[in-house]
Amino acid sequence: MSITLAQAEQAINAAKQKSTELGVKMNIAVVDAGANLTAFARMDDAWLGSVDIAMRKARTARFFDMPTGNLGQASQPGGSLYNIEHSNGGLITFPGGLPIKDGSGKIIGAIGVSGDTVENDHTVAQAGVDALS
Amino acid sequence: MSITLAQAEQAINAAKQKSTELGVKMNIAVVDAGANLTAFARMDDAWLGSVDIAMRKARTARFFDMPTGNLGQASQPGGSLYNIEHSNGGLITFPGGLPIKDGSGKIIGAIGVSGDTVENDHTVAQAGVDALS
Amino acid sequence: MSITLAQAEQAINAAKQKSTELGVKMNIAVVDAGANLTAFARMDDAWLGSVDIAMRKARTARFFDMPTGNLGQASQPGGSLYNIEHSNGGLITFPGGLPIKDGSGKIIGAIGVSGDTVENDHTVAQAGVDALS
Amino acid sequence: MSITLAQAEQAINAAKQKSTELGVKMNIAVVDAGANLTAFARMDDAWLGSVDIAMRKARTARFFDMPTGNLGQASQPGGSLYNIEHSNGGLITFPGGLPIKDGSGKIIGAIGVSGDTVENDHTVAQAGVDALS
Repeated sequence: MSITLAQAEQAINAAKQKSTELGVKMNIAVVDAGANLTAFARMDDAWLGSVDIAMRKARTARFFDMPTGNLGQASQPGGSLYNIEHSNGGLITFPGGLPIKDGSGKIIGAIGVSGDTVENDHTVAQAGVDALS
Repeated sequence: MSITLAQAEQAINAAKQKSTELGVKMNIAVVDAGANLTAFARMDDAWLGSVDIAMRKARTARFFDMPTGNLGQASQPGGSLYNIEHSNGGLITFPGGLPIKDGSGKIIGAIGVSGDTVENDHTVAQAGVDALS
Repeated sequence: MSITLAQAEQAINAAKQKSTELGVKMNIAVVDAGANLTAFARMDDAWLGSVDIAMRKARTARFFDMPTGNLGQASQPGGSLYNIEHSNGGLITFPGGLPIKDGSGKIIGAIGVSGDTVENDHTVAQAGVDALS
Repeated sequence: MSITLAQAEQAINAAKQKSTELGVKMNIAVVDAGANLTAFARMDDAWLGSVDIAMRKARTARFFDMPTGNLGQASQPGGSLYNIEHSNGGLITFPGGLPIKDGSGKIIGAIGVSGDTVENDHTVAQAGVDALS
C-alpha cells in the first residue's frame, strides 16, 4: 500500500497549519512508498532553495525508513555513514524528513519539510505525520 | 507579482476536477513567476514518469511565456528552435504547459499537466488557468 | 503490490534462457512498482553500454505503463511526444521495455532488455513477462 | 580475466543466504573487472536508498582495489584523501564494498552490499567474496 493523494494533502494541510502557528514559511513535500513525489506545497515567501531540500528530505526518509536527522548523526566525520550524502543523486541528512506509516505500522511514504530551523522543520514534518496516525 | 499558494491550489483543484470529468489521472504542477515550483499533485495511479514531465512543462511555459506546444512546433527538425529541449536541464515542448496570468494580463506563473494524451493534458491545464481568470 | 525478488529472478532467468536460444547476449533489468531496481543481470560479453539502457527501458516502461516502443512511436519528429526522452533524467523509447503484470492485470513492475536488435530485445523482454503470467 | 555472470550470481546467492542468517535485508551489487555492473539483487523490503549505495560500494572497491572502509579512513577531514567522494560521480567510502579475486589472487571484480549497519554490510559482502575463493 502506498499513500493516496488525499492522505498526502491531509498531511500537507496539517503541516501548513502548524507552520502558521509557529509563524514560519515552509516547503512541504510528500512522497509515496516508491519514493516518488505525490504532493508538494510552498507557502508564500518560503525559501526558494528549500523546494529541492524538502523533496530530498522526503525521499531520504523513505530511502532509509528513518528520520533524516538520524542518518545525519551517522554521516558526520568519523561516523559509520560518513558522506552518504553523495549517493542517490544527493541526500539531505539533517532533520525535517520523516517516514509516514499507516495504522498497521507499515511505511506508506514520507514527508519532507524545509524553510526554517531544522527543529522547526522537524516539528512541522511531525505534524504532517500525526495527521495520518 | 507572483502566484500565491492559495491560487496555485485553486488551479490544481480545478485541474483535478476536469481530470475526473474526463476520466483521466494527471500529474499537475504549478510554478511561480520565478519558474520555481509552488504546488504539485499526482492523482492516484497517475503515471510516475509524468511527475517530472508536469514540472518541466510548467517551467517551460514560464521560461518562454507561451504554451509549451507552441515551442514544440518551432523545435522540430529544420525549425528555428531545433532541439531547444537540450537547454535548461531539459525542456518539454509538447502541449500541456500554459502560462498563468492575473486579471491585468501579467504572467504570474505557469501550470504543467501530464498523464494522458497531449490533447487531454492541454485541456486539463487550461482548466487550471481558467480557474484564475 | 510490487514484484518480489523471487519473481524478478524468475523473469530474468526466463529472459536469459530465451537469449541463449536466440544466440544473443543481453543486459536484463527488473524494476518494481515504484520504478526502483529490483534485480539485474548482464550475460557474459554483453554490451557494456546496455547496462544503463536496460535499466532505463525498465524504468520507462513503468513510468508510462506501456511498452517502450509505443512511446517511441509518439516521440518521433512531428509526433505528439517529440523529445520526451529529455525528461526523467533520460528515457529510452525504443523497444525492449515492458510492464510486468500480476494475475489480476495490475502492474507490479517492469523489465528492460538491451544487447542486440530492438526486435530481439523485445522478444527477450516478452519472455521475462511471460514467465510471470 | 573478469568475473562471469555465473560467478556473480554465486556471490549474490551466498550474500543473500548470509543476510537471511543475520535477519537483515540487503541490496547486493557485483561489478566486473571494468567496474561495470554485472548482477544485482534487492531483497524484499530492503532500503530503496541502498540500491544506489550498493552499486557505488562495488564500483568504489574496484576503482581502488581495496575495501571501501579503508578508503573511508583516509577520506576523513585532515586525511590524505579528504573528500575523494566527490570524484567518479560520487563514491561511497564506508564499509560494505570488497574486491573479488580469483584463485590466483587477481582482482576480477567487486561486491557492494548496503541495507543495515556497516558491520553487517561488510559481513555480507565478505560472504559473497568467500563463495568464490
